[in-house]
Amino acid sequence: MAQVDALIFDVFGTVVDWRSGVAREAEAATRHLDVTGVDWGHFADRWRARYGPSMAAVREGRRPFVPLDVLHRENLDGVLEEFGITGLTEEETDGLNRAWHRLDPWPDSVTGLMRLRSKFIIAPHSNGHLALMVNMARRAGLPWDAILGAEVVGGHYKPAPESYRGAARMLDLPPERVMLVAAHNGDLVAAHEACGMRTAFISRPLEYGAAREAVPTATYDYAALDLEDLATPLGC
Amino acid sequence: MAQVDALIFDVFGTVVDWRSGVAREAEAATRHLDVTGVDWGHFADRWRARYGPSMAAVREGRRPFVPLDVLHRENLDGVLEEFGITGLTEEETDGLNRAWHRLDPWPDSVTGLMRLRSKFIIAPHSNGHLALMVNMARRAGLPWDAILGAEVVGGHYKPAPESYRGAARMLDLPPERVMLVAAHNGDLVAAHEACGMRTAFISRPLEYGAAREAVPTATYDYAALDLEDLATPLGC
Repeated sequence: MAQVDALIFDVFGTVVDWRSGVAREAEAATRHLDVTGVDWGHFADRWRARYGPSMAAVREGRRPFVPLDVLHRENLDGVLEEFGITGLTEEETDGLNRAWHRLDPWPDSVTGLMRLRSKFIIAPHSNGHLALMVNMARRAGLPWDAILGAEVVGGHYKPAPESYRGAARMLDLPPERVMLVAAHNGDLVAAHEACGMRTAFISRPLEYGAAREAVPTATYDYAALDLEDLATPLGC
Repeated sequence: MAQVDALIFDVFGTVVDWRSGVAREAEAATRHLDVTGVDWGHFADRWRARYGPSMAAVREGRRPFVPLDVLHRENLDGVLEEFGITGLTEEETDGLNRAWHRLDPWPDSVTGLMRLRSKFIIAPHSNGHLALMVNMARRAGLPWDAILGAEVVGGHYKPAPESYRGAARMLDLPPERVMLVAAHNGDLVAAHEACGMRTAFISRPLEYGAAREAVPTATYDYAALDLEDLATPLGC
């Protein structure tokens, strides 16, 4: 394999556990209301389910780029209505929306990233915006060298090809010297097709709660069980 | 003073000593050539002198945005000609151009940034591009939370107002909750005029070699002797 100089990371699901964090915060934010019988993991899933379609509107040019906080908030308003939850103030709703800034890393993430950073430039390349990624990293101790992502590359949500090409351009590296690390097949396939970026699949069977199959459906440069398991074959 | 959440930093001169590093690398890169009688500090000054005018062409719309490596290289070709230095290969010239990626921090920079980071988001907001800032930070141990700068805010070189506004926008903060830390009066005044950004002046009397006066010529929120001296009044 040609030399790889930088690893860029999908974040929601690959580096952090969005479902548990969002469920925990949604339950806490509504505890003072008369809400019963909600499965908060399911609430998180339904909020997340609106994520892809909301970004598609930007990718397809039906609306201009907006940071992910804006899409998350619109989607939160929708999912609150879906669950018949009313009574949150504007401030409480905004606070809950920022649950995505306060997600916990998977148990291997910090130690895995520290190892990977010893040899490679490491940066998140998420659809989350820079402010969200900074808040998350400071809270969770994620030792990024820089923050990339949809906003930093000029407003291109993954899996738009411009997103991956932009990440390599910002790193001033040929795409084949950059490797995307992600738990999602679509992300990895798009990165490779966009510009020949290298790929590493991480299994995250618990991303959606109860264990489910999380296997590579294409051929990647690496497939690993977690970030520590990726560090070893990369010589870190 | 209203709450400040983030500190953004000028880098060349404020955080790192560009003159010594460039002089050292220029001397080393040309040692195998028949070059005599060059004052390499003066060479660094002359290279740096071309920096402002070369960015002005971009700021004034006479050429599209290009990363700083491109301007540095054009300016290096010019200064080599000015000094009558010939015989560097393309690879050697490119290597010397990247001297700006390998500058040493001032003695207080790493410890000062570590203290400031305990309380504030910290990020460089330099005219240097992301790849340069990442290489510099990894080598020097600068503990940035994110990399901002001319390239990240959409291609606006300081002191263009869009540059400062863009930095606050990327941090998702009102400009008055962001403070620019810089050793250069023009940078600080422009940031405040552009968007009411807070300002901290750092004295760097050795930036141009032999000690010279380095004093604030306007009123700033803070004026300090170095980054440790700034950390103290900020409660870090």
